[in-house]
Amino acid sequence: MHTLQVDVGHTRYPIAIGAGLLRNRDWLANHIHAHDLLVVTNTVVAPLYLAALREHLAGRVAECILPDGEPYKTLQTVGWIFDALVSHKMNRDAVVLALGGGVVGDMAGFAAASYQRGIGFIQMPTTLLAQVDSSVGGKTGVNHSGGKNLIGAFYQPLAVIADTDTLATLPDRELRAGLAEVIKYGCIWDPLLFDWLDNNMGLLLARDTEALTYAISRSCEIKATVVAQDEREHHLRAILNFGHTFGHAIEAATAYTQYLHGEAVGLGMLIATDLSYRLGLIEAVTLDRVKTILVKAELPTQAPRIGAARALEWMKMDKKVLAGTVRLVLLEKLGRGVVIGHYAQDALAATLSEYF
Amino acid sequence: MHTLQVDVGHTRYPIAIGAGLLRNRDWLANHIHAHDLLVVTNTVVAPLYLAALREHLAGRVAECILPDGEPYKTLQTVGWIFDALVSHKMNRDAVVLALGGGVVGDMAGFAAASYQRGIGFIQMPTTLLAQVDSSVGGKTGVNHSGGKNLIGAFYQPLAVIADTDTLATLPDRELRAGLAEVIKYGCIWDPLLFDWLDNNMGLLLARDTEALTYAISRSCEIKATVVAQDEREHHLRAILNFGHTFGHAIEAATAYTQYLHGEAVGLGMLIATDLSYRLGLIEAVTLDRVKTILVKAELPTQAPRIGAARALEWMKMDKKVLAGTVRLVLLEKLGRGVVIGHYAQDALAATLSEYF
Repeated sequence: MHTLQVDVGHTRYPIAIGAGLLRNRDWLANHIHAHDLLVVTNTVVAPLYLAALREHLAGRVAECILPDGEPYKTLQTVGWIFDALVSHKMNRDAVVLALGGGVVGDMAGFAAASYQRGIGFIQMPTTLLAQVDSSVGGKTGVNHSGGKNLIGAFYQPLAVIADTDTLATLPDRELRAGLAEVIKYGCIWDPLLFDWLDNNMGLLLARDTEALTYAISRSCEIKATVVAQDEREHHLRAILNFGHTFGHAIEAATAYTQYLHGEAVGLGMLIATDLSYRLGLIEAVTLDRVKTILVKAELPTQAPRIGAARALEWMKMDKKVLAGTVRLVLLEKLGRGVVIGHYAQDALAATLSEYF
Repeated sequence: MHTLQVDVGHTRYPIAIGAGLLRNRDWLANHIHAHDLLVVTNTVVAPLYLAALREHLAGRVAECILPDGEPYKTLQTVGWIFDALVSHKMNRDAVVLALGGGVVGDMAGFAAASYQRGIGFIQMPTTLLAQVDSSVGGKTGVNHSGGKNLIGAFYQPLAVIADTDTLATLPDRELRAGLAEVIKYGCIWDPLLFDWLDNNMGLLLARDTEALTYAISRSCEIKATVVAQDEREHHLRAILNFGHTFGHAIEAATAYTQYLHGEAVGLGMLIATDLSYRLGLIEAVTLDRVKTILVKAELPTQAPRIGAARALEWMKMDKKVLAGTVRLVLLEKLGRGVVIGHYAQDALAATLSEYF
């Protein structure tokens, strides 16, 4: 088992990564200190892991099972979590435990942040994407019809517990979508991780435990480092959104039905890398390497043909827009992401025309 | 004009108290720095002050007018504020300005705390209760059918701007309800304020500007001092809930229709003082003084006859309940509130029987 620490100044918490944590009664008893727990999960994850987890938890445990999927990531669904907390008469000392992927974690975290103005919260991510990205760093929230994650809170968990055994039941497509976020860390932060991914993608796709554990640990390390420096995304943290402005536009324009989040982010990274090349920030070989690794990870490299104008319109609802300018995360070189607010608009137009 | 500072460590902000601030273009321009403002108000306040305020604000100003009253203090109504922010394409640099009483301020604050995980927020309270209490200290939120203020955030405003001219249009009953919270500060913190209120209640009820300005300034000073020491209510801040546990039970049991918040709090203070006396914490003369000042302020001193058992049930949904015990704010002497978790249950039962 690997344990890392996230330190954001006002609070610090552990990330534990390992096999079988969900069924390890003693370990759980040592790491979850709450008399009252509400396990929030969904209809897909509950039949797989809820009974096993409940069996190994101490204290009073209630549950709240949500419908599965991004379309349910709404304020209304969070209202159901509040209803569950109230109906079980949970007080300020209660803890919400999120068992599931990013959607479950984002909503359970926002509910914990807001119930009684903040109660404890533990992330137990069961997808690769949640284990390497969304469960770490304290971003919580829901979508609004006007855009993704428009409503939420920065709210750090008490702990992140990533049981790698849960990846065994993950559909192939979701595994690959999670790999897109791992590739992201290589692109924006760590060229050695990029090289390692280039050489070991086959092992990851074959779900080799050791390879997956390394990819998760290194991703969490990088995310923890970035978040420690800039919890509220005033500057550095924005680089973690590499591929996300284009990706969110792709997801929104296709009503969140055609692409998984990680797939859209993978495509967004390709588009952002293409723009970085057009702007003269990187060499053609770097663009080629990014495209190649996405193909190796069996991620889509064709964007939906929604038209450049519509893509731009959706991009403008992105949270990184300041005073009307779309700020973008681009690559300065492989392993270094930068946030750029001023760039040649014709280069952006050319990139958008090529992909959309 | 009086200006105070609230300093909660991670942020500090001014409270400005004075006549005509809402119509002072230069002063507003110097204190509100935002290109994009959403003014959140309600159907009662909008016809009185919205046009005048808009006329004196610079920048792009949009508005969101909510229905009036505590029954609308819900997650659904906050959803309408999100809709307004999205439809006006407001970004991270936008500011929400709450123009109204406590309900408007609590909801606008929660919306600002949650929109894009937190945008700027200014309180412009127009009721005495909001000017002396709810606009200061960063408690925001909405009610749930299971209890008051169960959903929300600690979120400090950028500034509190209290224009005492707005009290001219306040109904008498709401003025008196606001005085209950001023009396509270005397009871729990400042015996000299209590004496001053005892001697000047007639001036306050007659809306003497100087007397009101003093009462507001001193109340804000005390609240700022308490909040500075304990923003998140881990210990000291709980004394500000003097009268509130009983008061919330009264409001909830009568479906928020019979008593204004301040009226219920006034009654709750009387009940808490009675219990303090029964527990031997204070003399009979103190109980008598608290009752007398509530009568002077023309506040109700008769609780609704809901029965002791039902009152206790509602009290148990209070956020101060920890592991099943109802913690109460009691008086140790006039001018000193204390939070007590262990007390003789028969004394509580006797008090509840007498009042309910």
